[in-house]
Amino acid sequence: MPRTKGDHEARRRDVSEAVWRVLTAHGFGGLTLRAVAAELGATTGLLTHYFRGKQELLTHALDLLDERTGTRARRAAGPGLAGVRALLLDVLPLSEEAVTGNRIWVSSWDTALADPALSAAYARKYGRSRERLSDLVADAQRRNELRPGDPARIAEGALAFTLGLVVQALFDPRAFPPKRQVELLDDHLNTLVEP
Amino acid sequence: MPRTKGDHEARRRDVSEAVWRVLTAHGFGGLTLRAVAAELGATTGLLTHYFRGKQELLTHALDLLDERTGTRARRAAGPGLAGVRALLLDVLPLSEEAVTGNRIWVSSWDTALADPALSAAYARKYGRSRERLSDLVADAQRRNELRPGDPARIAEGALAFTLGLVVQALFDPRAFPPKRQVELLDDHLNTLVEP
Repeated sequence: MPRTKGDHEARRRDVSEAVWRVLTAHGFGGLTLRAVAAELGATTGLLTHYFRGKQELLTHALDLLDERTGTRARRAAGPGLAGVRALLLDVLPLSEEAVTGNRIWVSSWDTALADPALSAAYARKYGRSRERLSDLVADAQRRNELRPGDPARIAEGALAFTLGLVVQALFDPRAFPPKRQVELLDDHLNTLVEP
Repeated sequence: MPRTKGDHEARRRDVSEAVWRVLTAHGFGGLTLRAVAAELGATTGLLTHYFRGKQELLTHALDLLDERTGTRARRAAGPGLAGVRALLLDVLPLSEEAVTGNRIWVSSWDTALADPALSAAYARKYGRSRERLSDLVADAQRRNELRPGDPARIAEGALAFTLGLVVQALFDPRAFPPKRQVELLDDHLNTLVEP
C-alpha cells in the first residue's frame, strides 16, 4: 500500500476496516478483492492501488490480525497464578470482541497450514506464548501457588486446554457461555494447584 | 454426481481421490474446481459433470472428510478409563494418516464457521463426541477408575484439551512428536484419576 500522509492514511484505514469486516463475516475463505471492494462500496480496480493481488490482501489481513491481537485490551496480569489465569482468560472468547478475534484466528489456520513459511511463523508465535506461560507457571511454583513439575510441560497442557476450549466455544456458544468457559478453565487450573 | 454403475463409479472414486489430495496439500482454502482438475489431469469442463460449482465441490469434500473419519481404523475402545484414553488417542495426530485427517479437519473450520448451517452441524458433531466421551467417563467413575465429578464437565475439559493439542501439534510437529502428545494426554488423564 502507498505510504503517504493525510487522505491516503485515512483511506488506508477505511480499507483495513473493510478487510476486517469481511474477515468477521466470512473468514479467510471469503476474503477476496471483490468482497473487500463491495464492503467498501468501491470498485475492485480501486483496490488494486492497495493490493497487487490476493496474496498481498492475505498478507495485509494477517498483519491486521496480529496488530489487533497485539493492541487489544488485556487483563492486568499480576505475578504467579493470577498471571497464569489472566493470560489464559485473555485467550478465551468471553466478550464479543474476543469472539470476533478468535473466530478470525481459527479461520486463519487453514491459510497458515497450507503455507510452510506461514506455518513456521505460527509455530514460533505459539512457541512464544508457551514460553511466556511457562515463565508465569515457574513464578507461581516459586510462590508455592502451583504444584511442582516441568513448567514447560504444564504450559503446553494449559495452552492446549485453552485453545481447544476456544474452538468448542466458537462452534457452540450456547453450550459454552462465558461462565462455563471460566468454570472449565478453573477446573484445569485447580488440577495444577493440588499437591 | 451421477449415480450410475461401473466406469462411472470408478471415475467418481478417482475424482474423490483427487479432491482428497488437493485438501491434503492445500486445505479448503486451496480447493477449487481448477485445482481438482489439475490433480486429476482433466479439464475443468469435465469436472462440471460431477460438481455444478464450488458449493457442490465443498459439500462433497466435507462428506468425504466425514466418511474418511467415520471409517478410519480405531483403537479397541474397551470399557472405563481405557475407553476414555483410546477415544482421545484416536483424535490425536499420532500417525501420518491422522496428521492428514486432522489437518483437513482444522482447515474445514474456516468454511464451517462462515456458514451458519454448517456451523450448527459441527456443533452437533462435537456435541455427540462429548456425549460419547461423557458416557465413557461415567463408566470409568462407576469402576472407581476416575474420581467423582460431573461426567459431562469432565468430558468437555478432556475434549478441549485434546483438540487444542491437535492444533499445537499440527503447527509444531517437532515440539509435539507423538511421544510428547501421549505424555501430555496422560498428564491430563492423571489429574482426573487422583482423588
